[in-house]
Amino acid sequence: MPNVLSKIPMPQSFQNKALSGALLVLILMIVKSKKEASSPRKIPRRQGQGNVDQVFINRILDLLKIVIPSIKSMEVVDLSVLTVFLVIRTMMSIYISSLNGRIVKTIINGDLQKFIKKIVQLGLVAVPASFVNSYLEYLNKSLSLRFRRRLTEYFHDQYIKNMIFYQVSNLDSRVTNPDQRLTTDIEKWANSLSQIYSNFSKPVLDIFLFSKKLAVSIGYQGPMYVFLWYFFSGVLLKIVSPAFGKLTAIDQKLEGEYRSVHSQLLYHAEEVAFLQGQNWEKLKINQSYQQLNKHQIVVNKLRLFMGIFDGLLVKYGAVMAGYGIMGLPVFGPNREEYLKKIGNDKSAITRDYVSNSSLLINLAKAIGRLVVSYKEIQQLAGYTRVVYEIKEVLSDLTSGYYRRTQVQQENETGQVVIDQGKHQTIQLDKGQIIQTDDIIEFENVPIISPNGDTLIKGMSFKITPGMNVIISGPNGCGKSSLFRILGALWPVQGGTLYRPAIDKLFYIPQRPYLPPGTLRDQIIYPHTKLQMLRRKINDQDLIKLLEDVQLEYLVYRERGLDAANDWNDVLSGGEKQRIAMARLFYHKPQYAILDECTSSVSMDIEAIMYNKAKALNITLFTVSHRQSLFKFHEYILKFDGEGKYWFNKQNI
Amino acid sequence: MPNVLSKIPMPQSFQNKALSGALLVLILMIVKSKKEASSPRKIPRRQGQGNVDQVFINRILDLLKIVIPSIKSMEVVDLSVLTVFLVIRTMMSIYISSLNGRIVKTIINGDLQKFIKKIVQLGLVAVPASFVNSYLEYLNKSLSLRFRRRLTEYFHDQYIKNMIFYQVSNLDSRVTNPDQRLTTDIEKWANSLSQIYSNFSKPVLDIFLFSKKLAVSIGYQGPMYVFLWYFFSGVLLKIVSPAFGKLTAIDQKLEGEYRSVHSQLLYHAEEVAFLQGQNWEKLKINQSYQQLNKHQIVVNKLRLFMGIFDGLLVKYGAVMAGYGIMGLPVFGPNREEYLKKIGNDKSAITRDYVSNSSLLINLAKAIGRLVVSYKEIQQLAGYTRVVYEIKEVLSDLTSGYYRRTQVQQENETGQVVIDQGKHQTIQLDKGQIIQTDDIIEFENVPIISPNGDTLIKGMSFKITPGMNVIISGPNGCGKSSLFRILGALWPVQGGTLYRPAIDKLFYIPQRPYLPPGTLRDQIIYPHTKLQMLRRKINDQDLIKLLEDVQLEYLVYRERGLDAANDWNDVLSGGEKQRIAMARLFYHKPQYAILDECTSSVSMDIEAIMYNKAKALNITLFTVSHRQSLFKFHEYILKFDGEGKYWFNKQNI
Repeated sequence: MPNVLSKIPMPQSFQNKALSGALLVLILMIVKSKKEASSPRKIPRRQGQGNVDQVFINRILDLLKIVIPSIKSMEVVDLSVLTVFLVIRTMMSIYISSLNGRIVKTIINGDLQKFIKKIVQLGLVAVPASFVNSYLEYLNKSLSLRFRRRLTEYFHDQYIKNMIFYQVSNLDSRVTNPDQRLTTDIEKWANSLSQIYSNFSKPVLDIFLFSKKLAVSIGYQGPMYVFLWYFFSGVLLKIVSPAFGKLTAIDQKLEGEYRSVHSQLLYHAEEVAFLQGQNWEKLKINQSYQQLNKHQIVVNKLRLFMGIFDGLLVKYGAVMAGYGIMGLPVFGPNREEYLKKIGNDKSAITRDYVSNSSLLINLAKAIGRLVVSYKEIQQLAGYTRVVYEIKEVLSDLTSGYYRRTQVQQENETGQVVIDQGKHQTIQLDKGQIIQTDDIIEFENVPIISPNGDTLIKGMSFKITPGMNVIISGPNGCGKSSLFRILGALWPVQGGTLYRPAIDKLFYIPQRPYLPPGTLRDQIIYPHTKLQMLRRKINDQDLIKLLEDVQLEYLVYRERGLDAANDWNDVLSGGEKQRIAMARLFYHKPQYAILDECTSSVSMDIEAIMYNKAKALNITLFTVSHRQSLFKFHEYILKFDGEGKYWFNKQNI
Repeated sequence: MPNVLSKIPMPQSFQNKALSGALLVLILMIVKSKKEASSPRKIPRRQGQGNVDQVFINRILDLLKIVIPSIKSMEVVDLSVLTVFLVIRTMMSIYISSLNGRIVKTIINGDLQKFIKKIVQLGLVAVPASFVNSYLEYLNKSLSLRFRRRLTEYFHDQYIKNMIFYQVSNLDSRVTNPDQRLTTDIEKWANSLSQIYSNFSKPVLDIFLFSKKLAVSIGYQGPMYVFLWYFFSGVLLKIVSPAFGKLTAIDQKLEGEYRSVHSQLLYHAEEVAFLQGQNWEKLKINQSYQQLNKHQIVVNKLRLFMGIFDGLLVKYGAVMAGYGIMGLPVFGPNREEYLKKIGNDKSAITRDYVSNSSLLINLAKAIGRLVVSYKEIQQLAGYTRVVYEIKEVLSDLTSGYYRRTQVQQENETGQVVIDQGKHQTIQLDKGQIIQTDDIIEFENVPIISPNGDTLIKGMSFKITPGMNVIISGPNGCGKSSLFRILGALWPVQGGTLYRPAIDKLFYIPQRPYLPPGTLRDQIIYPHTKLQMLRRKINDQDLIKLLEDVQLEYLVYRERGLDAANDWNDVLSGGEKQRIAMARLFYHKPQYAILDECTSSVSMDIEAIMYNKAKALNITLFTVSHRQSLFKFHEYILKFDGEGKYWFNKQNI
């Protein structure tokens, strides 16, 4: 309803169309939200809204501790200044209201001299008023920026250390979009939080002060009638109004279903196309759309009738009630007294009328703002839930726990165990990791996918420096899982893993990661230039490495190692893979995992690179289908994809 | 600036804070948008905004032809009624303005009888006014629903026939999210279009009528001064204001970069974690955030100073100017004349004051709305671009063309040919398809991925009914492409393909598609129940098919074949695959493509199903790694993944 109202122009005295119906909307909202909470039917909540309950309060207090770390922090100073300025602003509004009345009086009296004097007064008060208004905005935004910064820095710390960012997206299933949570959602939360304070305290203050002022000039009946009017219309509308909340929820449900039919079609496009199911699908899609369309037409009609009633009661009714209140001094019981006081001066009546109506409008506005701020609190609750969730996930992962949605599994008798939507808490690291000097040994280590599927029950093999191994097997057989366990990305869930320090291992995937930065950065990543110089390696050495992979032309083409570029765009697939090999040669690790990392380079360059790696005494684990690579490895590790594996010396 | 203004309460006569600065914002916007257009620096456009240019006009006219198919359609009727009601509403507003003045006059005069009479008059006009207001809303929404429906039905038609939905997502690279375009974006477009008309014509009408009315009571200087004031403040603000447009664009750019660093980190989480690059990444992420934060702090400060100036000029300045205009009758050159006319009656002056200020406010509002509606046209242009793009793609695909972004390719000398961002138009079907009774033959047909990679230069083999073939080879070797060509999903790009009618082929993937619907639907898809009965198959037959795949318990568990459920959730992987086999037995096609479709069922059930399929005389193409399946096939088609293939009889 509010947005319907906001489109309608209103007569002069009650410009605040959207606001005049505000309190009753508030009443409706509270009644409805209670109803909905107790309703057994689950209707999806509007996005971004959350429940304002104890959980919300606990969470927000927890987050507040992060963004306002101490009583002495700048945030507290800002909040105090904000409070003072809010009070000043309301006082100024009251003063300007009465000034307005006096200006109109001078017009009615045709008193040019006084008119000019009052206008100058208004001009003078305009300077501090403009400053106060603008400074309030500034403080709000400032607080929002501070909040965002505090929370962002707090999360960055947790998120990036110990590779939690990897675990969030690959081990835990609770948060699917951590990047969005850490950017957009934190921003929304900070904005929402910074505005809640002024948006909530201002209307409360205004209602109090404007009512008081109005009571002085019209008597206590003035503000009382305003509240009574809102209460009366609220109750009346409550009785008449169809349950738009529910209707909107149904609308969203239908819209959601319609969208889902569309995305399902796309998802299964291949099967549907193969099976020639287009007629079936068209029928279903059209049915779903028609259902939505029909519902929207019904709701639109309901809104028409409700809009008429709403307009009569809330818009014109409020205006009439307002005139009634404005007429109180001259028509009310204290009429004689009032007229005597002002000496029956019509211009004085006008002055009082203008200043009173100004107060009345401000009062109505304040009531409206209170409603809006209640919605804002709901919104804050929504954002808080979203932000708090990632906080929980980060701290769980930091303390070694993760949770996954358990997927349905078929047990051995063919029966189905459905355990849907439940989260399973899994403790990491039930196995043992023992650091060695240079030996890698798996001792009965199970290869388990993060889904909980056991790929291999217990794996055992031992590798010493110089034992180059080629690994083969179908997709999903456990190759990648093996590397992830070896690289400390995944937990060791049983047995014992002996392995050297993590920096003695290096990994090159099929599509290497090229961070934004200079050409030099691509080779030395994750080292910085400073670390490179400390290792006594200079740019000439890097260029030699590029020569090894036949990429020296890049230095000329890009004009030096300091050239910054979007390397993912600029380089071809083969160039990327060759850069990654140069990176390997720079780091010279004891072991290297080469995961299809030469798939886009020609065989002769591949051979050059493999020979170079062996010359640098790097022990290789290679995953590749290329027969040509087998000759560089003394050992073969073979998976059959059904839980078995073989580790053998090759007959080269 | 506008949103800064909208938070500030204003003195009585000029409530429309957000609106009073409107025209100048308009002037600023126009000046700026011209500047930006000519600026060589590329700053990303705000989302959802489009250029209002000739292209936009052509596109919108094209789309209008779809949503308003003829002059006699209901949309034209709605638009005509809308026009009439818009005029009525403005007339009513003017009448209510003057009524307001007269009510205030009765208050000033303390004339209770007249007061009540006028209030009753207001109450009487409130009924039609409420109706007109609400009906205008209704008409707008109605039009929006009609537009959406027309366009949705138009697109559904194109999208689903000839399997275009498959081609949009798998062959063409222009539109990555057709489902969103067809649901959300069409909805936004329809909403935007339906509101443009009233939101644009209303302020124009209002400005004209209110100016005219105001000129009658204050003289032509009244409205003229209003326009002059807006022009003057517009120019002044233009001179003073920092380029907030540019600053916002930079803000969005920095915000985008920050988000992209985050999503890049997630995307490359595994490599970064393997290479222990967390310190590097933390540095980069914090740098990116700090840059954004610093910029936002600077912008906030600029906004503070601009807000003060804005408040002085636009808010309080406008109020003072307004009082000046309101004072014209009593202070202006025609003072004597005016006072004589009204007999120096102060309550009459008040009446005129109230009614004039009401007109003035409405005029200011109208100017403000004009600005908003210009922004809305830009928005419509944005949506139009988005919707029109899918229209183009659909009609291109329907006429047999598709476009792909050409990816960079390394040529034979190792040099890189970069041809980025360019679209390549590709014509489908350069090869020949000849329909046969029951023979499948590939005659030198190239297997080309939609990326344009040639997987196999020319494939030739012939299959007659009863020749069951098992297919093996590494991933990406062309197995799926072969099926897609056979199933008419992908174009035949050369040679000749002989194949029977498309409904003699059936396809079962590893994860079968289970459409929303009943248990019966799962078996007979894509047939409807009616088609099933026409084939003289009844529910008992279907239950027998379920028995064949040992799924008869589903009928009891789900209580009949009419049970509707979300089968993707309810069934296990193995049950899904068995349902798909039942579907195969129901359709009894001449040929079946079984793509790893028994990977989740046990070997004994697999054998039962294969034997049943062979008993039904279905010729099988199986893709599987399972050795146990080889014995059901007489022939083997083997790919080596490097462009070679062998087709042989197996020695079973």
